[in-house]
Amino acid sequence: MDIQTMGTPRLRGGDPTFRDRYRGIRDWTVGLTEGLAPEDQVVQTMEDVSPTKWHLAHTTWFFETFLLLPHHPGYRLHDERYPYLFNSYYVQAGARHCRDQRGHISRPTVEEVLEYRHHVDRAMMDFLEGGPTRDNPDLSYLVELGLNHEQQHQELLLTDLKHVFSVNPLRPAYAPGVEEQPAESGSSPVAFRWVEIPSGVQQIGWSGSGFAYDNEGPRHRRFIEPARLANRLVTNAEYLEFIEADGYRRPELWMSEGWALLASQGWTAPFYWEQRDGEWWTFTLSGMRPLDPDEPVSHVNWYEADALARWAGARLPREEEWEVAARGQPIEGNLAEKRWFHPRRGSSGASGAGEFAQLFGDVWEWTQSHYSPYPGYRPEAGAVGEYNGKFMVNQFVLRGGSCATSGSHLRTSYRNFFHPDKSWQFTGIRLAKDGLTD
Amino acid sequence: MDIQTMGTPRLRGGDPTFRDRYRGIRDWTVGLTEGLAPEDQVVQTMEDVSPTKWHLAHTTWFFETFLLLPHHPGYRLHDERYPYLFNSYYVQAGARHCRDQRGHISRPTVEEVLEYRHHVDRAMMDFLEGGPTRDNPDLSYLVELGLNHEQQHQELLLTDLKHVFSVNPLRPAYAPGVEEQPAESGSSPVAFRWVEIPSGVQQIGWSGSGFAYDNEGPRHRRFIEPARLANRLVTNAEYLEFIEADGYRRPELWMSEGWALLASQGWTAPFYWEQRDGEWWTFTLSGMRPLDPDEPVSHVNWYEADALARWAGARLPREEEWEVAARGQPIEGNLAEKRWFHPRRGSSGASGAGEFAQLFGDVWEWTQSHYSPYPGYRPEAGAVGEYNGKFMVNQFVLRGGSCATSGSHLRTSYRNFFHPDKSWQFTGIRLAKDGLTD
Amino acid sequence: MDIQTMGTPRLRGGDPTFRDRYRGIRDWTVGLTEGLAPEDQVVQTMEDVSPTKWHLAHTTWFFETFLLLPHHPGYRLHDERYPYLFNSYYVQAGARHCRDQRGHISRPTVEEVLEYRHHVDRAMMDFLEGGPTRDNPDLSYLVELGLNHEQQHQELLLTDLKHVFSVNPLRPAYAPGVEEQPAESGSSPVAFRWVEIPSGVQQIGWSGSGFAYDNEGPRHRRFIEPARLANRLVTNAEYLEFIEADGYRRPELWMSEGWALLASQGWTAPFYWEQRDGEWWTFTLSGMRPLDPDEPVSHVNWYEADALARWAGARLPREEEWEVAARGQPIEGNLAEKRWFHPRRGSSGASGAGEFAQLFGDVWEWTQSHYSPYPGYRPEAGAVGEYNGKFMVNQFVLRGGSCATSGSHLRTSYRNFFHPDKSWQFTGIRLAKDGLTD
Amino acid sequence: MDIQTMGTPRLRGGDPTFRDRYRGIRDWTVGLTEGLAPEDQVVQTMEDVSPTKWHLAHTTWFFETFLLLPHHPGYRLHDERYPYLFNSYYVQAGARHCRDQRGHISRPTVEEVLEYRHHVDRAMMDFLEGGPTRDNPDLSYLVELGLNHEQQHQELLLTDLKHVFSVNPLRPAYAPGVEEQPAESGSSPVAFRWVEIPSGVQQIGWSGSGFAYDNEGPRHRRFIEPARLANRLVTNAEYLEFIEADGYRRPELWMSEGWALLASQGWTAPFYWEQRDGEWWTFTLSGMRPLDPDEPVSHVNWYEADALARWAGARLPREEEWEVAARGQPIEGNLAEKRWFHPRRGSSGASGAGEFAQLFGDVWEWTQSHYSPYPGYRPEAGAVGEYNGKFMVNQFVLRGGSCATSGSHLRTSYRNFFHPDKSWQFTGIRLAKDGLTD
Repeated sequence: MDIQTMGTPRLRGGDPTFRDRYRGIRDWTVGLTEGLAPEDQVVQTMEDVSPTKWHLAHTTWFFETFLLLPHHPGYRLHDERYPYLFNSYYVQAGARHCRDQRGHISRPTVEEVLEYRHHVDRAMMDFLEGGPTRDNPDLSYLVELGLNHEQQHQELLLTDLKHVFSVNPLRPAYAPGVEEQPAESGSSPVAFRWVEIPSGVQQIGWSGSGFAYDNEGPRHRRFIEPARLANRLVTNAEYLEFIEADGYRRPELWMSEGWALLASQGWTAPFYWEQRDGEWWTFTLSGMRPLDPDEPVSHVNWYEADALARWAGARLPREEEWEVAARGQPIEGNLAEKRWFHPRRGSSGASGAGEFAQLFGDVWEWTQSHYSPYPGYRPEAGAVGEYNGKFMVNQFVLRGGSCATSGSHLRTSYRNFFHPDKSWQFTGIRLAKDGLTD
Repeated sequence: MDIQTMGTPRLRGGDPTFRDRYRGIRDWTVGLTEGLAPEDQVVQTMEDVSPTKWHLAHTTWFFETFLLLPHHPGYRLHDERYPYLFNSYYVQAGARHCRDQRGHISRPTVEEVLEYRHHVDRAMMDFLEGGPTRDNPDLSYLVELGLNHEQQHQELLLTDLKHVFSVNPLRPAYAPGVEEQPAESGSSPVAFRWVEIPSGVQQIGWSGSGFAYDNEGPRHRRFIEPARLANRLVTNAEYLEFIEADGYRRPELWMSEGWALLASQGWTAPFYWEQRDGEWWTFTLSGMRPLDPDEPVSHVNWYEADALARWAGARLPREEEWEVAARGQPIEGNLAEKRWFHPRRGSSGASGAGEFAQLFGDVWEWTQSHYSPYPGYRPEAGAVGEYNGKFMVNQFVLRGGSCATSGSHLRTSYRNFFHPDKSWQFTGIRLAKDGLTD
Repeated sequence: MDIQTMGTPRLRGGDPTFRDRYRGIRDWTVGLTEGLAPEDQVVQTMEDVSPTKWHLAHTTWFFETFLLLPHHPGYRLHDERYPYLFNSYYVQAGARHCRDQRGHISRPTVEEVLEYRHHVDRAMMDFLEGGPTRDNPDLSYLVELGLNHEQQHQELLLTDLKHVFSVNPLRPAYAPGVEEQPAESGSSPVAFRWVEIPSGVQQIGWSGSGFAYDNEGPRHRRFIEPARLANRLVTNAEYLEFIEADGYRRPELWMSEGWALLASQGWTAPFYWEQRDGEWWTFTLSGMRPLDPDEPVSHVNWYEADALARWAGARLPREEEWEVAARGQPIEGNLAEKRWFHPRRGSSGASGAGEFAQLFGDVWEWTQSHYSPYPGYRPEAGAVGEYNGKFMVNQFVLRGGSCATSGSHLRTSYRNFFHPDKSWQFTGIRLAKDGLTD
Repeated sequence: MDIQTMGTPRLRGGDPTFRDRYRGIRDWTVGLTEGLAPEDQVVQTMEDVSPTKWHLAHTTWFFETFLLLPHHPGYRLHDERYPYLFNSYYVQAGARHCRDQRGHISRPTVEEVLEYRHHVDRAMMDFLEGGPTRDNPDLSYLVELGLNHEQQHQELLLTDLKHVFSVNPLRPAYAPGVEEQPAESGSSPVAFRWVEIPSGVQQIGWSGSGFAYDNEGPRHRRFIEPARLANRLVTNAEYLEFIEADGYRRPELWMSEGWALLASQGWTAPFYWEQRDGEWWTFTLSGMRPLDPDEPVSHVNWYEADALARWAGARLPREEEWEVAARGQPIEGNLAEKRWFHPRRGSSGASGAGEFAQLFGDVWEWTQSHYSPYPGYRPEAGAVGEYNGKFMVNQFVLRGGSCATSGSHLRTSYRNFFHPDKSWQFTGIRLAKDGLTD
């Protein structure tokens, strides 16, 4: 089977049946673990990171718990002890193992987890064959949710593995050849330019008939004051300028809490950067590589993004500004389907004066917007209502997806969210500015 | 001297000169420490709390550092070692003592701190006499800022003392007779009612000629979707219903982080509540008192406020919703000038159908709004620019002032802010709801 | 090859050559990992625990570092990055990986570690063939030290694995059939009896021509006041009496620090005990089993041992008391060679009135003696001098070996040592009492 | 009243009646607080430190709890809430306030605590007048225990105050003129010399008719191998040599746990040392002073003492070695009665070849001996049995008293004990060596 083809289903397209899409997305997950040793799939290097085999099992548990058990008559639990192990945070779905001890669990082995996947996959194929989802929009929604959930964990599996390999002094490569970008990727970044965005009263949030997370709606109005967004992402070269201008030694550029963290944790550069004999290197899923100045900067946390923007006389965009800028743009770019798993220079170019580059893919773009509910927000009923709503505090919205996000998973209204001190995701910066002129 | 009269200057009125207002506000601070033993003024019971004598000294340092030293020729530091001790967080104003060790400093004694105040007050009176502020709006702004700063610390001095006394098993009273509310305070809360607020495009933020903090501006437009606000604050009786309905045992009512804190810190009721033989009591600045069901609930953190609102089928207001509701209302209520220092039942009644009670005073009202910069926000230049801007992360906006806030210090556009887990301030709840009907 | 035969070499016997003993001990280590999945060998469940594959590699590093590199001309490092990963605590042998992050290292895989072992084993066989150790007692000592070191890690490998499996809700068994004790193990414990020990001036510490650790000498004199030791170990049944007499709720029985730990960590029973429906169970290397009242109690920490002794009107022995009691006794009992890996009832019986049972094997016996240097103690020169001496603070001596200790590794003068709060080893209790009569 | 005279009662002498001695010791305590502001007496700067007013109250609580309440008919508690506040660690005497929050308690004020003292003192004088202790040795013992307890807290009061003042950037002096040592104190240290101590079987521990703590007995025999002790204490100059020989950068000199603490806490010199412009200064109860090279080094922890000894090719003494060396020596030296409160150069000289200097006073001398019970040890019955016995783990014995210890409180058999990482007491070093020649 061609994993790449199968793994890039059109999520909202009509022709591929649910069964094909289910199989394609599920196979893509397992395909990501090719070449890994069992040892690689057990380790948890910090609380944010989950072991690979936990991701494989947890996504399976999701289908078992929310679809097979309640809606597929005759289904029997694969192992009655697994729900406790593989429930992540769904309080209403029962007790669960401590998050920070996922790396203490050697059994079930990777092989046993793959058996669990097969068991559930067979039942799901059977379930989807029966067509109960055809006439039941609630069940359709749950299947879609399960598939989108699986895609989110595909991205986490990659960023978590990157962390696992990075703390190993041997610095193993996830996929030695994965980064063979085509020749055109050698082009330079497009010239920096401010682009005016639509202002006044704007409609924000998801509207349409396909799947979206509950946190993307309801669609509502916002007043946008005149503002500009950068036409492209901040590059490593530009971030280096900030470092060399003593960016990490000037408290006036930082939020007070960021400055305290910088001091206590010793931040001096983005997360995976390392200086060797005066040269900057960065850890990638292909191992250590010299820093490419023309690539978009990645693995910065919100405090770093905010400080760089202040140093540049700019600010981070609000999420609604990003959304009206991206409206109507095709969801194309350096996304997971390309299997590069690293931001690349000059991707998805912007040729015209009013155009944006790199809106989708490469890196998630930090916004100034706290992750809050939209006016009129209501979470889904039941345990799946815990999916998004209960995290709406102390996190910031990111937009646009990364090189580890499937394009089939994204939407212009998509709201990702992380705490401001997190940097193990592919997270970068697009600048914004108030007003239309300086 | 009549402290009460002097302590309630009209901050933006024209007739009292700067000198009168300076003296009145400074004297009010010292008046708050009457009846305290020196021992009471040294203790720091948690990192958020500062000792009374630190407040007395820090507010003095503010005038010395930002006005006398740079702008009053010939001024000499009272003690060259004090700036290190009494700078709070102004990085650009030099090195400073660790915040969490303010309670380790027995010297200077209270008496020596009062001498420091006299020294600075004499110089300030001299400085203001000279009139340098008359023609220099920047200096005027700094004096106003210093006075407003002092008023904020008056409130902190009271809430910090409350904490200091509360952890003492002897449960001392700050002011035994302070709570003698007039007879009319025995009235019941007004009947609960939803009140529609203005919607559509609205102007938000400070505009006017008087003093306001930089974070209250610039004035800008927001689109407000149709919504309603409660006509009054949530009462203790209503909060008790939430407790009795297992509010603290139902994770689905809570933000995930709030639930984790609840579990690890053992929250079961608002901060100063205590159950004795089946009856609820609460610690006040007058000592332990039986809980009055008709008083507004106070000392709840944001997570509690948010959970109660969810349980009630409502939500917390956004700050712009609160602001348009309060627009045009007089700044009256149970404020510091009354010297009750405790929320009271039925204060500032709302007689008509469209009216709000308790908008100002009693308790600060938690909003759903993360503390973020307004569009176009620019902090002041120099060290005083650190006053507000560098805290715009992980905090939530509160509106309306409390029983420990001077009315002369408040504005409709006033934005207070605290982290969502804090409850040692007088913080309470006003409910909001989307739409105009259920 | 017969692992059991090879794994029980006579360490100080003359006939087996060094090469046979080297091979036997090294093979025994690998034999202990039979039946483990790679996943089992990566996990670190607390700082005290090391992953199985780390033990396999670290013992190999010991021979590579202290014998092959300095003394085997032409030897080349198997992998120049391994010394950093597999040095444990030998500061003089170079930088090393953080102990608490051994479980973050997925590579080298188990297979790669076994290749490392083969590489070093081939070189060691070659080295020992050459006979450089024949005429060089320093080299002989180092080989002996390496073999004894390996045997210590064999025990740790087992106790660490036990911890790894115990925290897994699936409760896997290390070796399902390992515990098939012979029928005679069903016998009851011998009757409890106090046995007088030799008193007056006694010689303590190692003397002889074979190998001993530096901490066992030099031999010196101690004055032993008249005292008695119990003829056998405390049983589970006796420990249960202590629990049922509120032993864990009576602070007067405990050292102050032990009581604080009991309260903060919630101790209510020995480490691996668990109550299910009113019955006590215990986790073993064969999985969960009902508690056998007649087995020696195991997995108690020093505080528990000390508290039980106080409750029983007795005390823990001093290490010199234990040594004079054990003098002349054969090193026999429930030791690792039996492959039961669990204390057993009634092992190595004491038939006569003045005899001791269970002195060797079953469980390490906590003593009242702080782990301090003997008079005249001198550590070995160089990095191997760090083996014992630098740990002589805050630890207590244990004597006698356990069911996971090779008999070929033990001596009457052997001093094991652990911190008083540790209980993941097979640690138990023998009582002592001052005087010859009550 | 002459405090100095009254404060140096002969504890075991016969002529001063109990009443005189009671009054003398109690007055000495209050005399130590002369010149302190109330603010100084509230602060707690780390968990080990207690506020001055807590010491004043806790010593009073001891007499109230163990003598007046049970044995003085008609006595009424001064304040029923005080026992909770001022019980330190006597579990059997009831619940108590958290040790680490003693500095959070502003009330009772210093004045109120002094009233508490007066109340108890009046009752005690009355009680002692009645003579119930004359015929009741148990009561006599309790009074003696209370007085000895008070004397221990006199020393702690001073060392705790030293810490409180030391963390204040203003560096206040406890007693500006306290250190005016007589001229002869300018003499040099005596020449260093090893002195042989008695060996073979020796009697150790208290024997006699006066008061001693339970931990000093029973008297028992020990075998002492031939050894030597230094005739005087290690000086600052000698300790500086250790520092300059990279003593703090050579892990092979340190216990492993000491090295980890050194690294994490950044030890580079004794606790109160500070380098200013290349010169060493030290904080004293008289403020900052240039380091006197000829004074005994003080404020070293056990790890530092042990490392210096190893560097010097020596070791710390065992407590029995110290005791046989000190046997028969008069209890004289730089003790609290001198009111210098700082170690001094060349005190209590040793003129002859076999003589020891500085055995008593100046600094407590760390020994190699873990604080363990003597053979046959039994704690006192009841709550006072908690006085010593429950601390016999993870602490090391110190001998000889310091410049803050009353000579009337000391005995040759006196065993002080602290954890090996503590350095806020006056703690120093006397070297020891195995054998009689090198």
